[in-house]
Amino acid sequence: MPLLVMKFGGTSVATLDRIRRAAKRVGREVANGYDVIVIVSAMSGKTNELVGWVEETSKLYDAREYDAVVSSGEQVTAGLMALTLQEMDVPARSWQGWQVPLKTTSAHSQARIEEIPTDNINARFAQGMKVAVVAGFQGVSPEGRITTLGRGGSDTTAVAFAAAFGAERCDIYTDVDGVYTTDPRITSKARKLDKIAFEEMLELASLGAKVLQTRSVELAMRYNVKLRVLSSFEDNNESAGTLVCAEEDIMESNVVAGVAFSRDEAKMTLLSVADRPGIAAAIFGPLSEAGVNVDMIVQNISEEGRTDMTFSLPVNQVARARAAMEKVKASDEVNYSELVTDEDVAKVSVVGIGMRSHAGVAAQMFKALRDEGINIKVITTSEIKISVLIDRKYMELAVQALHDTFGLDRAA
Amino acid sequence: MPLLVMKFGGTSVATLDRIRRAAKRVGREVANGYDVIVIVSAMSGKTNELVGWVEETSKLYDAREYDAVVSSGEQVTAGLMALTLQEMDVPARSWQGWQVPLKTTSAHSQARIEEIPTDNINARFAQGMKVAVVAGFQGVSPEGRITTLGRGGSDTTAVAFAAAFGAERCDIYTDVDGVYTTDPRITSKARKLDKIAFEEMLELASLGAKVLQTRSVELAMRYNVKLRVLSSFEDNNESAGTLVCAEEDIMESNVVAGVAFSRDEAKMTLLSVADRPGIAAAIFGPLSEAGVNVDMIVQNISEEGRTDMTFSLPVNQVARARAAMEKVKASDEVNYSELVTDEDVAKVSVVGIGMRSHAGVAAQMFKALRDEGINIKVITTSEIKISVLIDRKYMELAVQALHDTFGLDRAA
Repeated sequence: MPLLVMKFGGTSVATLDRIRRAAKRVGREVANGYDVIVIVSAMSGKTNELVGWVEETSKLYDAREYDAVVSSGEQVTAGLMALTLQEMDVPARSWQGWQVPLKTTSAHSQARIEEIPTDNINARFAQGMKVAVVAGFQGVSPEGRITTLGRGGSDTTAVAFAAAFGAERCDIYTDVDGVYTTDPRITSKARKLDKIAFEEMLELASLGAKVLQTRSVELAMRYNVKLRVLSSFEDNNESAGTLVCAEEDIMESNVVAGVAFSRDEAKMTLLSVADRPGIAAAIFGPLSEAGVNVDMIVQNISEEGRTDMTFSLPVNQVARARAAMEKVKASDEVNYSELVTDEDVAKVSVVGIGMRSHAGVAAQMFKALRDEGINIKVITTSEIKISVLIDRKYMELAVQALHDTFGLDRAA
Repeated sequence: MPLLVMKFGGTSVATLDRIRRAAKRVGREVANGYDVIVIVSAMSGKTNELVGWVEETSKLYDAREYDAVVSSGEQVTAGLMALTLQEMDVPARSWQGWQVPLKTTSAHSQARIEEIPTDNINARFAQGMKVAVVAGFQGVSPEGRITTLGRGGSDTTAVAFAAAFGAERCDIYTDVDGVYTTDPRITSKARKLDKIAFEEMLELASLGAKVLQTRSVELAMRYNVKLRVLSSFEDNNESAGTLVCAEEDIMESNVVAGVAFSRDEAKMTLLSVADRPGIAAAIFGPLSEAGVNVDMIVQNISEEGRTDMTFSLPVNQVARARAAMEKVKASDEVNYSELVTDEDVAKVSVVGIGMRSHAGVAAQMFKALRDEGINIKVITTSEIKISVLIDRKYMELAVQALHDTFGLDRAA
């Protein structure tokens, strides 16, 4: 029997009515002759509520308890989705991560998937079950504790199931009808893309375009999973949404495919650290161990053997980063004069595989920002993207200016 | 190390603040030298919300999915309680039912506990953990699916842990400061009891006094667990709350210990069924299989080989009871002329071990109801209780009248 993976995000299962609408889509694919694995997120807002409780309880929380609390949202949706399908006479049952079992590493709150045994679920398909409803975002560690895969982890769950079960396609149902050149809430000129290359999607996802979790795209690229993003609020035909695919499947494209942004960034600077071999390791090793996701890193030119080290990180990790830095200072491993934190910055990036063969994109970007009077605090570049850190209050202005300057409102 | 079990009900963990207050009580017992197993309920209102979603999704729901959904509430509280204790520097971690594992039967939504292995948690105590926070109400079936123990099941979890681990005492923290002669919301004359016999508590619990789940009292009686009910909102001294204990530990008591009631009852009558051997089995077997908790049963005198069969049940099980009865009629196993349902009844009962040695309690009860003009629809009696089914609208009046007539506002 051909198999589909269908993933429904939080807004697509926000109410019992929406769960019913999603279940109807699943029922249609069953009628089309598919076995279906449905991956569900928590009902919209639920995960935020749970995370809020954890953070209010404990600033430097035990990630194992965080996972136990936060994974409960998906558990609820999975059960309700299975019940809704049963009510429509579609044979279905729910699976929690630990029941599959979806085996992960022990890196709580950002665990990686290690293995998805298929025998358990396939045995049920063989017995006549048509839909396996799986709680997204969660798994189980070698120690038998609940793990989660990081925010947006249900996308990764979906792609991993598509790869493990050899699904014909992995459809990601969400509250937008595809991947846009930028967030339409920032500029009405944003345009839906019919296709986007894995590499571009990867940069967009990691830069804060919240359509797909980064790791899900990585995984899709590695296992060549046909990944489609589409709306759960519209009737979709065969060519609806955006297909995320290999670069060679895209005939023509703009130099820049999209403008991404990430609002909740922070910048930390260690002033006057000794400029010696191993200093970067002495700083970023402890940050990594503390679970801080450092993004951009800039080191100033050295003066009299001392330098300033600047890095960006999610603003909600500032407390644990500061704790880690105070610890290394106390132990004399890193002797800085001062720790300066700026919690009011945002990151804006332009992304496009066309940049590889097209010079001058950076210059054009910096000029557009200058024309709006926006100061750039940090710059990083890669082969297919350029990112800048700016004051958060200028973020929307910057996105609009860049969208205009690269003509993203027009198809290639 | 001596061990305590402390159970916190939904209102005692309704907010993060209340969880902190509960955690402080736990911390105090740890400071007193105890290892503690904390059993938590879902935050107040949470389970009702989840049950509501399930029932709105599916009237005749799959109890396995019900359990997956509804058990999530306790999972959240367990994690938050562990985090709160850690924040107070008390070494703690959470356990889900399946992690203990608390092994149950496969009777979903009303599973029975079969085994609680102690090695896993005891190994952690040996390593220095001071508090094991266990999600109440839930367990795991032999098939590896989540089960729940029925509403109020966290009390049963608590007593079962106290028995399995040989706890010194099992303290049940709740929103009342003990067991009352009746619900103080019905009459301000209700009086707190210092002690109550297991048998009386058992009748009161099963009759709808919501302080303790019936099965928890059964279990406490069987394993002689010292069970104390006390308020989580007051400072308690050694003799606070109500001690539930063996009959011989109570010196003197009223003939009637309390008046209990159950509001959400329904009455079903099968008119004109054949009065033949096996007819009761043919009716109540299928009801039991459908998961209907039949309570009172009355069979009329037979006329011309036919009789009427009346039984009471929780009002929310009427749909499945009706479905079961229509099925036995369709298959010709039970041929009744009509199925009459009354969904507007309530049950009121008087309970007391003193009734064993004191005649006339029933007569006094019926007279009190007659004086208020309340019609009795069904009567059942046991050694230590008398129950009547009446119109729901008279329930509060009946409770007040009975509380007065048996002088329950005065201590023995």
